[in-house]
Amino acid sequence: MADQGARRLPKYQRIAAALRQAIQDGEYGPGDRLPGENDLMAAYQVARMTARQALGVLQTEGIVEARKGAGVFVRSYRPIRRRGVPRLSSASWGSGRSIWSGDIEDRTLVVDRLEVAERPAPGPVAELLGVPEGEPVRVRSRRYVLDGKPVLFSVSYLPAELVAGTSIESEDTGPGGTYARLTELGHRPVRFREEIRSRMPSGEEAERLDLAPGTPVVLICRTAFTAEGRAVEVNEMTLDSASYVLEYEFEG
Amino acid sequence: MADQGARRLPKYQRIAAALRQAIQDGEYGPGDRLPGENDLMAAYQVARMTARQALGVLQTEGIVEARKGAGVFVRSYRPIRRRGVPRLSSASWGSGRSIWSGDIEDRTLVVDRLEVAERPAPGPVAELLGVPEGEPVRVRSRRYVLDGKPVLFSVSYLPAELVAGTSIESEDTGPGGTYARLTELGHRPVRFREEIRSRMPSGEEAERLDLAPGTPVVLICRTAFTAEGRAVEVNEMTLDSASYVLEYEFEG
Repeated sequence: MADQGARRLPKYQRIAAALRQAIQDGEYGPGDRLPGENDLMAAYQVARMTARQALGVLQTEGIVEARKGAGVFVRSYRPIRRRGVPRLSSASWGSGRSIWSGDIEDRTLVVDRLEVAERPAPGPVAELLGVPEGEPVRVRSRRYVLDGKPVLFSVSYLPAELVAGTSIESEDTGPGGTYARLTELGHRPVRFREEIRSRMPSGEEAERLDLAPGTPVVLICRTAFTAEGRAVEVNEMTLDSASYVLEYEFEG
Repeated sequence: MADQGARRLPKYQRIAAALRQAIQDGEYGPGDRLPGENDLMAAYQVARMTARQALGVLQTEGIVEARKGAGVFVRSYRPIRRRGVPRLSSASWGSGRSIWSGDIEDRTLVVDRLEVAERPAPGPVAELLGVPEGEPVRVRSRRYVLDGKPVLFSVSYLPAELVAGTSIESEDTGPGGTYARLTELGHRPVRFREEIRSRMPSGEEAERLDLAPGTPVVLICRTAFTAEGRAVEVNEMTLDSASYVLEYEFEG
């Protein structure tokens, strides 16, 4: 049946399928150069346009990337394994560590484009925080760059009246970060909800995360709740989908 | 600063940004028709190609979709809220309900392209199930169509020796589905791990889920474990990203 299906496909798609299979079989590993247009023209007896289309299919799927003048290469995929549940355990941030410390293994993390400001709460954020739209919120935004590649942009919103006069208003929130400070203020986050979507990036998002063409973004909207059920933070994250595997483990 | 940034953008991107803002502000709601090329040419004093590029940007982002001969429309987004944790609670499938019953509210779900077969375990699946590669596994694949739109394709793998001679080998697994049957067999799944990725679809995936251009897929790979830590099922799901919000709630 797979064969009948293959015979109905246009030639460039059959070539793309063969290359895809070779990548999945490990014949071409991460960072390897694929056969070029000339190689494919000779191997499959096709026109240059057909060879180009075949490589284009794999680029659109995000499996390979073209480097100018050098050819088409299998993407190096060494994703960050973001383990949703344990990373937010208070055993982690409660001991003064960053939530990120478990995610990145031996890689180098740089946080840049850090901005702290007070702004009126946008509608959807106000709704999640349970405050009136336009109510002042403290907005902390920053970008995370791993081994030189931007992987995540995060914008965190906290009710201004909750954090006024605390180090959550400063650029450096101190050991354990925002959640440790909220705990000291008597607003310990004990429950989290993460909502996940995916879509193609806007031009601004693609630039900010330095995304290769054909790479979607993953959006995570996290709300942190106290034991009393009060929402104390909303964090809107935009992730490079090629850099991440999100993992959630739970009881049935 | 936003203004300086805007002035540096090419004209078609500025038009796209204005339309995007109007959609976010609710000026154009889901299903509404956007101004066409002629309208944009007149309103912004630009060439047809520029107007077309502006609309193309929003299509690539998946915010709008072109319908042949009718124009460009704001996408109707009424996503399925897939609540990761409670939907797999044994209180749900243990009582004979389908895992899906909580997801779809009042909408009409049709399951089609159901196939059940025995196959050698592919490498990554074998690794997750802890069986040798090529070991026979029972493969159950099916497509979920909600209100006429395919939203998910699921391929589930179970060790053949575990399910031989049971209704898991039939098309209809009976009340509560596979997990209820595994429980009766003494292999009750009590812990789940879901791994989530996102990428652009292959041509086959785009066709199978009837995806609009510029729509990524979300991949969920779920492994179900017994109390003894044995992996009894691996389920590889491919989701239309425009149809879903995934939600996970957990304690910190």
